[in-house]
Amino acid sequence: MKVPAYDDMLAAHERIKPHIRRTPVRMSDYLNELTGAELFFKCENFQEPGAFKVRGATNAVFGLDDEQAKKGVATHSSGNHASCLSYAAMLRGIPCNVVMPRTAPQAKKDTVRRYGGKITECEPSTTSREATFAEVQAETGGDFVHPYNDPRVIAGQGTCSKEFMEQTDGLDIVVAPIGGGGMVSGTCLTLSTLAPETQIIAAEPEQADDAYRSFKAGHIIADDAPVTVADGLKVPLKDLTWHFVSNHVSGILTASEQEIIDAMKITWKHVRIVMEPSSAVPLATILKNRDRFAGKRVGIIITGGNVDLDTLPWIN
Amino acid sequence: MKVPAYDDMLAAHERIKPHIRRTPVRMSDYLNELTGAELFFKCENFQEPGAFKVRGATNAVFGLDDEQAKKGVATHSSGNHASCLSYAAMLRGIPCNVVMPRTAPQAKKDTVRRYGGKITECEPSTTSREATFAEVQAETGGDFVHPYNDPRVIAGQGTCSKEFMEQTDGLDIVVAPIGGGGMVSGTCLTLSTLAPETQIIAAEPEQADDAYRSFKAGHIIADDAPVTVADGLKVPLKDLTWHFVSNHVSGILTASEQEIIDAMKITWKHVRIVMEPSSAVPLATILKNRDRFAGKRVGIIITGGNVDLDTLPWIN
Repeated sequence: MKVPAYDDMLAAHERIKPHIRRTPVRMSDYLNELTGAELFFKCENFQEPGAFKVRGATNAVFGLDDEQAKKGVATHSSGNHASCLSYAAMLRGIPCNVVMPRTAPQAKKDTVRRYGGKITECEPSTTSREATFAEVQAETGGDFVHPYNDPRVIAGQGTCSKEFMEQTDGLDIVVAPIGGGGMVSGTCLTLSTLAPETQIIAAEPEQADDAYRSFKAGHIIADDAPVTVADGLKVPLKDLTWHFVSNHVSGILTASEQEIIDAMKITWKHVRIVMEPSSAVPLATILKNRDRFAGKRVGIIITGGNVDLDTLPWIN
Repeated sequence: MKVPAYDDMLAAHERIKPHIRRTPVRMSDYLNELTGAELFFKCENFQEPGAFKVRGATNAVFGLDDEQAKKGVATHSSGNHASCLSYAAMLRGIPCNVVMPRTAPQAKKDTVRRYGGKITECEPSTTSREATFAEVQAETGGDFVHPYNDPRVIAGQGTCSKEFMEQTDGLDIVVAPIGGGGMVSGTCLTLSTLAPETQIIAAEPEQADDAYRSFKAGHIIADDAPVTVADGLKVPLKDLTWHFVSNHVSGILTASEQEIIDAMKITWKHVRIVMEPSSAVPLATILKNRDRFAGKRVGIIITGGNVDLDTLPWIN
């Protein structure tokens, strides 16, 4: 296990700056009144491929030496990591191979292909995915970029909090959604050095609360196939992300499906941004734990904005 | 008719700066590829009350002398002007009276009341509106702030283009939606002095194309009750706005209802902002007049973001 250091995050920021957006921070007087806190929304949904994962992906891709770059990168993912890695590989002009369950939404496959990613389909099971991925990697020699349990990826995600601190002149608390823990680990990596007094809180769906239970138990608990509207948060912690979560996170708060949907709708309405259900989990936990946040300067990381606009969760 | 001058716009900007947001400019590589142009989206939907109209409203409200301010302001509107004027009056702590048809959507009434505006309902006819407004004004002495045909309002709206030019280092063309012509007039006021080489194009729904027909005829043509999904653009030009449109606009382009809805959805998806149908008319006209815009730096003013999230026009 190679734990990334603060300097790796700084190097990542220099490396990826030409390829990512310095996303804006939004505020809403209305939501400040509602929560009693001063809220800052860091809009990573405004990255070109629509998610913070472009930070880790570009850091991995642009950090490859020329020889490895020729063989490209490879990953398995059916979500934003697949499209962001394809996007990063397209920017460098190198191959990207993605193993994806054949049942993945067509829109996700289309996005990966639009960015030049090559998809190899597998059955929707861990066994099939691992076997297929091993074949693809043996064939292509592509460098494996894990969606979150990779020091290059975590260092890349950490650049978001660096910008966030610069843009807000400091925060009392930062709340980020937690799935595999890539963004939360990056946040820990950066803030534990840059702003050690800033609390880091992870927000998780009640129905996929493996990080919450891991945090309480003191070791990783992984669920098999949790069901939640926050589809970016179904994956479990791994050793690297557990390292950061167990050492630097102040608390993990959870929210119900309805609370997540309500927070999503209220953010669309008052912050007027298009964001994923996963990105609504932080506000959902803030609204139900008002006392913990009232009077504080609270940063919320809006992790992504790739949603199916034809099937919004509050419209039947 | 008192035509506002460039210096009025500059004075307006100094006056309103503490009360409005300097809204960000968004870009999308995807939409650049699709249109062949370099597009810049000025996000006025990110103003706290969700529309550019807060610029004109705060300019009128904060320009009142103390004696008039005690009596407050008054207007008739069922749209963003009513909520933005109420918001501006709330910021200064003065009364705001709004005459609104009793048939106006409950959400619009709720917003005005949330900002402390006092609503007097009228019947949904011009006669009733005018009679009711005369009564309200006689009773309160509130200063009438017209939604667009007011030099203070036009000078306020003009501050948007000043920021836009500063933020983009210049544009070849600016496209804004046109209803009564307040934003287009403010854009003309500012750019005719600040960037006279920049073309100004107004974008209008085919089904409410009175400005287009006025422009061709050389005099104001007003429709009675046009029907369009772009509900902010149903009102006709008046003498002040006609002055700017007839003197400074390079062209008026129109788009069908379906083209507007398609452009709205594609902007939500790729720019990831929540905006009104009215704000989609510019992109709709750019997509159908590709040759006119290809290779150019094109600014689009996203005028507002107050939409009913329960009834999106592409979902049945």
